[in-house]
Amino acid sequence: MNPKESKSGGATFVEEVEIAGHIIDSLILPKVLDEIAALGGRHDIIEIKVGQNRKDPSFARLKIEAASAEALERILKSITRHGAVPVHVRDCELVAADMDGAFPEGFYCTTNEDTEIRLDDHWRPVQRQKMDAGIKVSADRQSGECVLMADVKQGEQIVVGRHGVRVLPQEREVRKLDAFGFMGSTVSSEKPKAITIREIAAAMRQAKAGSGKILVVAGPAVIHTGSSDLFSQLVRNGYVNVLFTGNALAAHDIEQALFGTSLGVSMEQGKVCEGGHEHHLRAINRIRRAGSIARAVETGTLTRGIMYECVKNGVPFVLAGSIRDDGPLPEVITDSRQAQKVMRDMTDGVTMCLMIATTLHSVAVGNLLPARVKVVCVDINPATVTKLADRGSFQTVGLVTDVEPFLRVLVTELEKSDVA
Amino acid sequence: MNPKESKSGGATFVEEVEIAGHIIDSLILPKVLDEIAALGGRHDIIEIKVGQNRKDPSFARLKIEAASAEALERILKSITRHGAVPVHVRDCELVAADMDGAFPEGFYCTTNEDTEIRLDDHWRPVQRQKMDAGIKVSADRQSGECVLMADVKQGEQIVVGRHGVRVLPQEREVRKLDAFGFMGSTVSSEKPKAITIREIAAAMRQAKAGSGKILVVAGPAVIHTGSSDLFSQLVRNGYVNVLFTGNALAAHDIEQALFGTSLGVSMEQGKVCEGGHEHHLRAINRIRRAGSIARAVETGTLTRGIMYECVKNGVPFVLAGSIRDDGPLPEVITDSRQAQKVMRDMTDGVTMCLMIATTLHSVAVGNLLPARVKVVCVDINPATVTKLADRGSFQTVGLVTDVEPFLRVLVTELEKSDVA
Amino acid sequence: MNPKESKSGGATFVEEVEIAGHIIDSLILPKVLDEIAALGGRHDIIEIKVGQNRKDPSFARLKIEAASAEALERILKSITRHGAVPVHVRDCELVAADMDGAFPEGFYCTTNEDTEIRLDDHWRPVQRQKMDAGIKVSADRQSGECVLMADVKQGEQIVVGRHGVRVLPQEREVRKLDAFGFMGSTVSSEKPKAITIREIAAAMRQAKAGSGKILVVAGPAVIHTGSSDLFSQLVRNGYVNVLFTGNALAAHDIEQALFGTSLGVSMEQGKVCEGGHEHHLRAINRIRRAGSIARAVETGTLTRGIMYECVKNGVPFVLAGSIRDDGPLPEVITDSRQAQKVMRDMTDGVTMCLMIATTLHSVAVGNLLPARVKVVCVDINPATVTKLADRGSFQTVGLVTDVEPFLRVLVTELEKSDVA
Amino acid sequence: MNPKESKSGGATFVEEVEIAGHIIDSLILPKVLDEIAALGGRHDIIEIKVGQNRKDPSFARLKIEAASAEALERILKSITRHGAVPVHVRDCELVAADMDGAFPEGFYCTTNEDTEIRLDDHWRPVQRQKMDAGIKVSADRQSGECVLMADVKQGEQIVVGRHGVRVLPQEREVRKLDAFGFMGSTVSSEKPKAITIREIAAAMRQAKAGSGKILVVAGPAVIHTGSSDLFSQLVRNGYVNVLFTGNALAAHDIEQALFGTSLGVSMEQGKVCEGGHEHHLRAINRIRRAGSIARAVETGTLTRGIMYECVKNGVPFVLAGSIRDDGPLPEVITDSRQAQKVMRDMTDGVTMCLMIATTLHSVAVGNLLPARVKVVCVDINPATVTKLADRGSFQTVGLVTDVEPFLRVLVTELEKSDVA
Repeated sequence: MNPKESKSGGATFVEEVEIAGHIIDSLILPKVLDEIAALGGRHDIIEIKVGQNRKDPSFARLKIEAASAEALERILKSITRHGAVPVHVRDCELVAADMDGAFPEGFYCTTNEDTEIRLDDHWRPVQRQKMDAGIKVSADRQSGECVLMADVKQGEQIVVGRHGVRVLPQEREVRKLDAFGFMGSTVSSEKPKAITIREIAAAMRQAKAGSGKILVVAGPAVIHTGSSDLFSQLVRNGYVNVLFTGNALAAHDIEQALFGTSLGVSMEQGKVCEGGHEHHLRAINRIRRAGSIARAVETGTLTRGIMYECVKNGVPFVLAGSIRDDGPLPEVITDSRQAQKVMRDMTDGVTMCLMIATTLHSVAVGNLLPARVKVVCVDINPATVTKLADRGSFQTVGLVTDVEPFLRVLVTELEKSDVA
Repeated sequence: MNPKESKSGGATFVEEVEIAGHIIDSLILPKVLDEIAALGGRHDIIEIKVGQNRKDPSFARLKIEAASAEALERILKSITRHGAVPVHVRDCELVAADMDGAFPEGFYCTTNEDTEIRLDDHWRPVQRQKMDAGIKVSADRQSGECVLMADVKQGEQIVVGRHGVRVLPQEREVRKLDAFGFMGSTVSSEKPKAITIREIAAAMRQAKAGSGKILVVAGPAVIHTGSSDLFSQLVRNGYVNVLFTGNALAAHDIEQALFGTSLGVSMEQGKVCEGGHEHHLRAINRIRRAGSIARAVETGTLTRGIMYECVKNGVPFVLAGSIRDDGPLPEVITDSRQAQKVMRDMTDGVTMCLMIATTLHSVAVGNLLPARVKVVCVDINPATVTKLADRGSFQTVGLVTDVEPFLRVLVTELEKSDVA
Repeated sequence: MNPKESKSGGATFVEEVEIAGHIIDSLILPKVLDEIAALGGRHDIIEIKVGQNRKDPSFARLKIEAASAEALERILKSITRHGAVPVHVRDCELVAADMDGAFPEGFYCTTNEDTEIRLDDHWRPVQRQKMDAGIKVSADRQSGECVLMADVKQGEQIVVGRHGVRVLPQEREVRKLDAFGFMGSTVSSEKPKAITIREIAAAMRQAKAGSGKILVVAGPAVIHTGSSDLFSQLVRNGYVNVLFTGNALAAHDIEQALFGTSLGVSMEQGKVCEGGHEHHLRAINRIRRAGSIARAVETGTLTRGIMYECVKNGVPFVLAGSIRDDGPLPEVITDSRQAQKVMRDMTDGVTMCLMIATTLHSVAVGNLLPARVKVVCVDINPATVTKLADRGSFQTVGLVTDVEPFLRVLVTELEKSDVA
Repeated sequence: MNPKESKSGGATFVEEVEIAGHIIDSLILPKVLDEIAALGGRHDIIEIKVGQNRKDPSFARLKIEAASAEALERILKSITRHGAVPVHVRDCELVAADMDGAFPEGFYCTTNEDTEIRLDDHWRPVQRQKMDAGIKVSADRQSGECVLMADVKQGEQIVVGRHGVRVLPQEREVRKLDAFGFMGSTVSSEKPKAITIREIAAAMRQAKAGSGKILVVAGPAVIHTGSSDLFSQLVRNGYVNVLFTGNALAAHDIEQALFGTSLGVSMEQGKVCEGGHEHHLRAINRIRRAGSIARAVETGTLTRGIMYECVKNGVPFVLAGSIRDDGPLPEVITDSRQAQKVMRDMTDGVTMCLMIATTLHSVAVGNLLPARVKVVCVDINPATVTKLADRGSFQTVGLVTDVEPFLRVLVTELEKSDVA
């Protein structure tokens, strides 16, 4: 960052950065150049190598100029997030937290991309990557870890500023570019879905075969649409390794198991039963009387449905509470901070995440997952799918479709291969 | 309509009316009472008989009072539409059209409910009932017929005012009343649909077995969603007796038959083909070169798909033109008045209508059909289903779901019974 | 309930009930008759009086017959919810809770309509009416109170069954019945809204002038759409007496106050600021460092915005936590049960509720409010408005429109009258 | 295209192409590389110059290799659409049309981007650019012109294949790139719109001041939402130079002028008038009796509203017919081919297009406009905005908002400057 004479006579501040990877296919270079200009800087491309093949990485070295040290700093901070790294790096800057539950001002704010920090001239990985957190450094200065604002303890060393932090952006091809230049991986309601579902099934089989875990996040429409049996089959066949949901799905699942209705609608006849709107309350009450869902399974009160299958097959689940819950069921974690913590712990080892018909839980879980986890989001409402992508969960494949037929085709696809 | 002394000292104008049928279940009486009050009138219930059973008709005789002859007239005109008939009736009033293509001022405006007019002291049926038309009377004064504004010929006798016209409202039960009092027959995306589809299949089998015709109105999403084969099967199995659609469905159907794509998206791989966006144009061009769809089938250019099956199975179709058409295909009727006329002629004898994924055509056809035709409207967008109901097509069962799974389940249900 | 010989030879079970009120306009009688038939019963109308005027109540006395005591019981239980009361009443049945946190089996499940229970041959009001609760009876047997499942204490007397409970249904006119028979109070995006907003303003002025409180439930779109100043004006002018919202609205409001952005989008320029997505985290962090929102106002850290105005004008607010919260802000109640309790306490005295652009909070609050509270729900997404009505919050006026223009017109309307 | 020995031993086919412009910012280079690979080819980047500044163009020269002449041809055809031009060019290939109303097989299919064709070793412009057409060459071989399939006359010289055709892609910056990398110019319902509307107003003033024409395409919601006066003001103030709409807007506009209602809803009171649903029919009938809208203005039958203002201010309009029209009004062009032709003629000189609340007309007009026309699409339904972008109308700025407030703010903005 040496001021030098610019052509216009004023002093300029300069720094060289490098970017590597799919910087053209993944739009990283255009974005970086755009941001430099938008923040008032200029660039010189000192060197550029464009990959021969769509699989080959590219590389660019840029000289960035700005009119003030602050402007240059702003630019560097901004483009850092896309993986641009100064050629001359230094260690990250640390400040001790001066109180519990809050970061020092100027804290570095994480993305969901894999990140490294420089400590004592070495790049060290950041553990438990998630977006919208800070980074605390371990006492031995060998690694960092993403830490939530509310979890900060006084005295912990927190990264501030942008120096000595580098992001390793997930490589995203410009997938599904059609003739007019669209990008985006959402399969709209007007497209054929069979092939996409086949690919999802393939990814799930792969996850099951390997060491990765499949997390399923689901909303109560799974029950309302009559998909309980299909979902139960996924659980039994080992395609649900962790389930995140809320009181509603569990309550209506148990309502269906006990009364044959969901929100009072008979699953057999598709008609509202008189008095049926009370069923979910009576179902919750019965489970509360039993003590817990697990206990209700043991005692034979609950003999079928998704929650039953989770208990029987040892699939851990989180029921996260919300202010619209009735009851709630005994297993519901009513404290949202506690629920976040438990969910975050349970995402360890997850390599694939299937989000079905729930906006609240999908966004919450999208917040917890590192960018490298493959996410599939299925909803009949295009807005939910869009919302998720809008929050930076870019690795998402969205599918605008009805829950029940989606699960039917998915289960069929998975069984095909299980037999074969 | 004799002025008499009212309690408040002013003259009042009075008329007695009767209403019969499911006037409580179908909300007719509440609506009539509400309108009387809203238009400033008062009522006395002279007699009321409420049916014992939900199938039994009810009956009410009301005395209506208003402060002026005009106010009374307004009330009577309004409630006439719900089937209220003055106890003392007279013949309908006729005025000869003074020009082609327009009604005389004050013309009676039709609903889609069956209607009768009084001529020479006899109630006579109105033919070709549709909404938003006028009524012309035959030369022999034995019947009336719904006539469109643009079709009026000078000298034709047109009904004006509300006298001597009675509506026989379709009986609609307060169906699917749930515990909190909803009414409405739309099956939302959050409800189980299997049962509703089973009922639709039953109604279609019944129509096929009887003398009624099944009209299917469909949009291009049938092709885009990969449902071409399923739809073709419906045609082959005799469940489509008439097809109304536009240039788009036919063009993309033929695109798929010739190139394996729809809007350039490969139906096999779900991916956009390079250059594929041109396929529908090349498909249309090829059919234009052949002369017509029928001719392309004959000459072996077109060997599969929905249009092919229609030609092969002698199913008549209407391709109604629109300003967004490319080409268009030779069979497209580009004049909208002509298309309306042809479609209206072809709805004769239709007893059931299935509308799939098209707003424009659904509303247009909803306009043509008498209230007694059973209508099923399927769309992934709730707004389309709502819009149709909003235009007075009340007999509609709406289903918010994806086209392809809907057709898959429907075809399966229909084949079950065909085998059995 | 005496078995007697029916015409078909089998014994029948009989009971007489009465219903009064706007039983025709409000569709109560049709619903009751429909349910009797749907549950296999028969009815005789012994007496019916239909109100002269739309304001006059009607009355009906029915004899109900069923084939078994159980069937009759089911019918009576069902129609009780609509205000049908047996002519021969008896006290309600009480069972002592056998454990904490759950009702006895067979508990009476409440609606949101005003309700009375019969104790020692007197009808007693039920306090704190809300839907989906039970009723516990006070030790002195002078009144009942709605109690949540989780709040039940062992030994409390809980109402079971349907005897001795009567509902006083809110009178809803069949409003906005149009010519084709629609019912429903949602103002769609295709209707003129100016008049509806004027009526809302009138109701708010009335509430302000009287003793009722106005509760506003709002989502973060209030901030994102640039409506912060307009909302702040409502607070300053005394039209917000209680505010229910979540962490997101407060965080983005404070983000805007401190950084001029919302979700990183500049409110001045409508463009995304580089690094702006971090602003809400930095805003939350700063408030956490200050200790609380109130403290940040005191110390001059927070000098404008909605939360600032609430603190300055002594408007109590509830920030209910959810699993998608960042931070959260210090005032957020992270336990959902606790948040429900606080919110329910704060709805005492509320006579009008304005819900703006939030599904989760709207449904949660709809659950807490008695049917007599006037509710206005504003959202650009028709689904939210529909969802609310679908959960039984029938007194809702829905408005499908954009938040910012809605608030602009509302504020203008309210100021007109404040000046006048 | 000389076969040469490839490294793998097989012959390869090679061609060099150049691309210039904002090939990185506008994603052109990534798309081209992606397509080459997707179609089985390989590339060498012989030269690349990346613009210094976001305004500076970039340049690349590529060597493309494929395994067969056909594969190479496919690649070249595909990337031609993005402006890639072979270094060694030849004249375009022409085939005489062998029949009226259809192209020869293999016809070149146009995009909406400005295009040039090579004739006698000179690049010549293509006139009347639109998408989904063919190109016919003038007799003097000095220019080409976009021609619709149905308009082809036997003997006309039609361009086939891809040789000698080059596209000059509109430059689109990667606008509104936010921190996470979104692209897209749709302003969602959750964003502040005031600034965007200010920019639209600025563009309209600029168009008015210059020689460009403003085309407005509008649907009937303009009337239903009570925006008739605002729209009329735009017409009076000279901000509508051409109006494209259908029978519905005109009919409801005239309904409001004559009866004060729209679709029977009173614009004053927001309530449905009894009998009001007939008003639009009576309005159309009255105009038909007058002979035309223009004549109704002359004779004093029509004295206000949008159509009145168009007649009074000499603003030409097209009422394009559709199968859901009632009446229709005398000026309606019922033949869709004829309507397309008239609309296309009237788009000459249009530099800005405002599309308000209409899907059918927006897509139809989007099809007619060259890519260089600035398009603003306003709709409360995000799907309409998306659909338009999905059809290749990429230059569209979308605004998801309510019609009435949009027009209110727009008119206010425009008047500000008119005064200043």
